Amino acid sequence: MTANLRFDQETSDLLEQIIRHRRDVRGNRFLSTPIEQGHLDKILQAGLHAPSVGFSQPWEFVLIENQNTKQAVAASFKEENDKAQQTFATTEGQERQALYQSLKLEGIHESPLNIAVLYKPQDKPILGQTSMTDMGRFSVVCAVQNMWLMARALNIGIGWVSIVNPEKVKTAIDAPTDRELIAYLCVGYVDKFYDKPELETLAWEQRRQTQQVIFKESYQQHENN
Amino acid sequence: MTANLRFDQETSDLLEQIIRHRRDVRGNRFLSTPIEQGHLDKILQAGLHAPSVGFSQPWEFVLIENQNTKQAVAASFKEENDKAQQTFATTEGQERQALYQSLKLEGIHESPLNIAVLYKPQDKPILGQTSMTDMGRFSVVCAVQNMWLMARALNIGIGWVSIVNPEKVKTAIDAPTDRELIAYLCVGYVDKFYDKPELETLAWEQRRQTQQVIFKESYQQHENN
Repeated sequence: MTANLRFDQETSDLLEQIIRHRRDVRGNRFLSTPIEQGHLDKILQAGLHAPSVGFSQPWEFVLIENQNTKQAVAASFKEENDKAQQTFATTEGQERQALYQSLKLEGIHESPLNIAVLYKPQDKPILGQTSMTDMGRFSVVCAVQNMWLMARALNIGIGWVSIVNPEKVKTAIDAPTDRELIAYLCVGYVDKFYDKPELETLAWEQRRQTQQVIFKESYQQHENN
Repeated sequence: MTANLRFDQETSDLLEQIIRHRRDVRGNRFLSTPIEQGHLDKILQAGLHAPSVGFSQPWEFVLIENQNTKQAVAASFKEENDKAQQTFATTEGQERQALYQSLKLEGIHESPLNIAVLYKPQDKPILGQTSMTDMGRFSVVCAVQNMWLMARALNIGIGWVSIVNPEKVKTAIDAPTDRELIAYLCVGYVDKFYDKPELETLAWEQRRQTQQVIFKESYQQHENN
């Protein structure tokens, strides 16, 4: 590893491509082909080289192929998604409710590998986490994003399933009580990557304009405040 | 933008280099040279193309060059860091306390640009956030990590300052009360990037072994549980 490496413009252009072509992949696109060990190692190493507050590396990764575990997580997804459908039924119009129901929102069984990513709190003060106590959790999220980008560079899809009860997932993998589930990832090769986020294509939400979210100096100087 | 783009091995190797050479940069390494507009645009676009739960894009970015704002944030850093030094003084030995005090932990004034990254909650249910309510915050963290990697690919350093009082930062930038500060970033060109995380070099923490943090199927099957 060369110290003080400088990258050329091709590098940032390529990273831009990876970032723009990364998708959240659901069960309708996964292939059952097992992940090559070399690819899995690269994805995990990407996570392990994420930034972490105070170099605390507060992450743990559980690799799941076991059908019983997948079934338990899928059951929690169904339960939570049924509740979510009720929520959208009471707050949104019939059209969006129908759209919500039509969406495939996970790929737990279709993907050959699931990865549960957990936060392990420590019972000592952490450098950089004394004022903003979520920093450890945020470090784990940085690891997930590194993994997601590396997977995409390897033409592997990842879907982040958040419609689950974290405690039920923890039970399914025998996680100690102090751990916190940050992400439940479905990982697999895909038949294709969509060109845009599915929810953008389906107009569930619009892409925000740059000027809506970027402010100069303060919120006061922004016209749409 | 080509649909269904496949990347070659060079791409994943290059991403691995970017990931491994990304550093948290503090005031001792920043140059005062202003960030080129083209570079800033690339960094911000990397953030705007991060994954977000339910395509909610719940992020806002405040670009800060104003000295008064920087001074207010630096004052909050000093206040919080004094408290942190007290915490480490009571919980850790004299050597670590001295090491903590010797560390340069921010580059607020030394970096030409600061970026406050905030989470904007919505008062409607968000797809994918109904069970895990932190998902919006985590989306904002994904944006930060994309920006951090893009900056590194452009040979620009970023330092994440977390030793601040988020409410004081919000006051300094006139943020509406419902917003939450996720990250305060110092951004600038650098004289060099360190080869390893500074806290690893100084042995503040050890790098974890892969087998300490990667589990197969469940925590029960792990010897060091």
